[in-house]
Amino acid sequence: MGALHVLKVGTLLLTVTVCNGWLFDGFGTRRRSESDEVALWPLPQKFQTSGDAFRLNAASFQIVHAKESTAGPSCSLLQNAFRRYYIYIFGNGRKHGQNLDNVFNSDLAELQVQITSADPECDGYPSLKSDESYQLEVNQPAAVLKAASVWGALRGLETFSQLVYEDDYGGQNINKTSISDFPRFAHRGILLDSSRHYLPLKVILANLEAMAMNKFNVFHWHIVDDHSFPFQSRTFPDLSHKGAYHPYTHVYTPADVKMVIEFARMRGIRVLAEFDTPGHTLSWGKGQTDLLTPCFSGSSPSGTFGPVNPILNSTYDFMTRFFKEVSTVFPDAYIHLGGDEVDFTCWKSNPDIQKFMEKQGFGQDYKKLESYYIQRLLDIVSTTNKGYMVWQEVFDNGVKLKADTQLHVWKEKPPYHDEMARITAAGFQTLLSSPWYLNRISYGQDWLGIYKADPQNFNGTAEQKKLVIGGEACLWGEYVDATNLTPRLWPRASAVAERLWSDENVKDIGNAYDRLVKHRCRMVRRGIPAEPLYVGFCPHEYSGN
Amino acid sequence: MGALHVLKVGTLLLTVTVCNGWLFDGFGTRRRSESDEVALWPLPQKFQTSGDAFRLNAASFQIVHAKESTAGPSCSLLQNAFRRYYIYIFGNGRKHGQNLDNVFNSDLAELQVQITSADPECDGYPSLKSDESYQLEVNQPAAVLKAASVWGALRGLETFSQLVYEDDYGGQNINKTSISDFPRFAHRGILLDSSRHYLPLKVILANLEAMAMNKFNVFHWHIVDDHSFPFQSRTFPDLSHKGAYHPYTHVYTPADVKMVIEFARMRGIRVLAEFDTPGHTLSWGKGQTDLLTPCFSGSSPSGTFGPVNPILNSTYDFMTRFFKEVSTVFPDAYIHLGGDEVDFTCWKSNPDIQKFMEKQGFGQDYKKLESYYIQRLLDIVSTTNKGYMVWQEVFDNGVKLKADTQLHVWKEKPPYHDEMARITAAGFQTLLSSPWYLNRISYGQDWLGIYKADPQNFNGTAEQKKLVIGGEACLWGEYVDATNLTPRLWPRASAVAERLWSDENVKDIGNAYDRLVKHRCRMVRRGIPAEPLYVGFCPHEYSGN
Repeated sequence: MGALHVLKVGTLLLTVTVCNGWLFDGFGTRRRSESDEVALWPLPQKFQTSGDAFRLNAASFQIVHAKESTAGPSCSLLQNAFRRYYIYIFGNGRKHGQNLDNVFNSDLAELQVQITSADPECDGYPSLKSDESYQLEVNQPAAVLKAASVWGALRGLETFSQLVYEDDYGGQNINKTSISDFPRFAHRGILLDSSRHYLPLKVILANLEAMAMNKFNVFHWHIVDDHSFPFQSRTFPDLSHKGAYHPYTHVYTPADVKMVIEFARMRGIRVLAEFDTPGHTLSWGKGQTDLLTPCFSGSSPSGTFGPVNPILNSTYDFMTRFFKEVSTVFPDAYIHLGGDEVDFTCWKSNPDIQKFMEKQGFGQDYKKLESYYIQRLLDIVSTTNKGYMVWQEVFDNGVKLKADTQLHVWKEKPPYHDEMARITAAGFQTLLSSPWYLNRISYGQDWLGIYKADPQNFNGTAEQKKLVIGGEACLWGEYVDATNLTPRLWPRASAVAERLWSDENVKDIGNAYDRLVKHRCRMVRRGIPAEPLYVGFCPHEYSGN
Repeated sequence: MGALHVLKVGTLLLTVTVCNGWLFDGFGTRRRSESDEVALWPLPQKFQTSGDAFRLNAASFQIVHAKESTAGPSCSLLQNAFRRYYIYIFGNGRKHGQNLDNVFNSDLAELQVQITSADPECDGYPSLKSDESYQLEVNQPAAVLKAASVWGALRGLETFSQLVYEDDYGGQNINKTSISDFPRFAHRGILLDSSRHYLPLKVILANLEAMAMNKFNVFHWHIVDDHSFPFQSRTFPDLSHKGAYHPYTHVYTPADVKMVIEFARMRGIRVLAEFDTPGHTLSWGKGQTDLLTPCFSGSSPSGTFGPVNPILNSTYDFMTRFFKEVSTVFPDAYIHLGGDEVDFTCWKSNPDIQKFMEKQGFGQDYKKLESYYIQRLLDIVSTTNKGYMVWQEVFDNGVKLKADTQLHVWKEKPPYHDEMARITAAGFQTLLSSPWYLNRISYGQDWLGIYKADPQNFNGTAEQKKLVIGGEACLWGEYVDATNLTPRLWPRASAVAERLWSDENVKDIGNAYDRLVKHRCRMVRRGIPAEPLYVGFCPHEYSGN
């Protein structure tokens, strides 16, 4: 009755020799095999560790600002992070007694965090250009974490917490370690879709926490779509009042959005909002008359609506005011403008659109009409001083783009390798999602395929490769909501996290399996219901619902 | 970027005309379209409803024993059920004031529950022969639920609670309704596997609750397997102490097992324990020396172990004592003895086994050795006065079986239709799981295939069809634990629930979709994180983790 052939696959996997090439041994005394304990994820770029173990005394250990740091106690972003990582390491409810009688020579007294830039960016927002690199030295009497800005410090704090392991007496330990780390790609994102199903704030915040545990730095918020419009606009309140599943219980108020942005900022995560047009906009039409194209059945309106109506001036007036608000609400330097999957059927049916096509000399080429719309939209958004990101069709359809446009590759056909090559050959920045549509599920260990995909795996020059800014794991919302989103996303998205952070040569499957199993148990222990990779157990099982 | 082709499938589905053939209209006054509100799942066998609506006053409505009932307040099973369904209908924390000033003519005052048999079975256990039929009349001044025993009353209470719908003022309403209902099959089960991953008690209990909401009546507890032995035996404590993932945190104590059985009993659910031998027993060997066959590499033991050693008397002594305990711990009349997927490699390698084969005249036919073992095991279990259920291989391999043995069909090849035909032609009872391995997941609405499968869909006589006692949805544990089990199982298992309870002609997909969407929202509202079928929302979204 059991699933024998699956067992076989698993056995094969488990017997792959775990390559500990990433572990160095060397310095001496009180050693234990930390490979049994420590599982860093994603793997740092350079790191050396030894068997020398230090103990962390919950009553006296502290995370502090280094004397030389340009940041201090007024940096609430770091203060919050210190608290968060203290709790991850020791759990809630530990007494902090400063009882120095119980401090031993073998203890690690503190972690000193030193920000080296003149501006630590405590109150800033992370950006594509943020420096996330850090150096971590764990040695007596104190560990030192150095980073140019808070963004690197956040990544280093996560790594520090991952180095800590529990011994058989329940005590916390850390080995002598030296790490120099930085991300391979600057854009490492997760897309969540709050339109096909509404996602309660709690779910979004939990996933931001999980993202930080995996060093993701972009929350791509696909906030509205055909099915519902939960974003509450101050300028056009009818959009959510009429377009959300429910005007009160299924919306994101301005305060909600602010909270998401701040919660993300505290974790070094950008919030990249997507307002996809001209397709995927059915829900917009409910609260905004004349925005969508009326479809015709023969010579009379059918009562249904198509994409945004590109021939009316009122459309562009609306977009101007709407994106002005959006650009204020979302502080990130980029907006995602969508532009994918425009269905021309409705446009073709509409006599006014036909006349406009004729007047413009577009013939029967509706891609030209699409380009006309996108062109005008991009001009509008440019006035807000935001950069923009669009789905690959906008490039494929020949829309004229600003040189700094970022093109988001999602299609499976043509093969994404070819698309990435074409886009970068044209000199545009790009990021990859095609192999990382994590909404698509299948039976078994599908993290393997996710892990093997690489955004720079295409034929191109070194210059072209540099135009790849990273990638995003996408969890489209057709089949997920608050009931199943988090376990479906984690730890599968962790595979993407390592691909985007670690060196391109980090691809040993046996070693990754070993670390990922432990990393997922760590997420579980921190309250994230990350699902199991395969048969086994966590010392601390999930105790939530 | 979105998943367009999936949208198309969904649209198609959503536009299938919902056939309300199961709705009758007729009696008059204060009508509303209850098809928008009420979604019965699984669909009752016979039922009539009208637009006449009655209100349920939370302060005065009660569920009571009918005067004529053979059960009364001493029947704690029913008392508990009354409370449970009151809370499902009105939520927790409602004041019960008996303020009759606020009672109106249009109110439904109470639900009277009448047990008609001399023995209501309040303190009994449900069995394969339990009468789960019931009649429900919802009319003023009181609704009446009649059933021979508490088991039918439990099913009727669930149906009553499903008839209640909330109006726009948050009030609870029910329409005039007449239902006569009974299950199509007597065995309607869910298999959970607590060996590949340990399942905390909380998860098991939550799923028993969900089972009751779907009128399932058998919890098939695949409690131990190769990977771990969490069942704590009083007779052989080393089995779990050495064979569980952890001797304290990952075991089921006798008290735990008792609690599961009682929690299930209160919901009319049998607990059918499976102790699978001679294969799937690696974890047994850790705590019981000489139980497993030592495998040989050439002429010397390799240090690994195979199936239970069938040639030692000590094996049968152990099984006698072990199953004596098991038969006491689990009150159900049946034990599942497994018997599947016996790998002969190890037996073949062992010289003592080879000698035994020769002595018995088995030649090289290891199926004969397997049969020899199973035969002796069945004799042992027969002395405990339990019936037994085994996986189909035991039949396929020609083991001599008692006439009342139940054969569990799980393989995909040969096609289960043929297997069911063969088994019933031989006169044995059988149940189906092949199309219901819900651990196997795929992208999209896979409940459709689950829903369409039918255990009586094979060529056979009416007599043969009668030997089909039902089926089980199986959720093998390779990829599920406390983090993801419940949303992965529900509402996909609900599709099996309707197939096993409702009339065989209930198979309209559009109607089922419509009801199942609402049924899953009802489960969500009751605290079960059942995942969405497709795009949409629930008025009360899941608020757990």
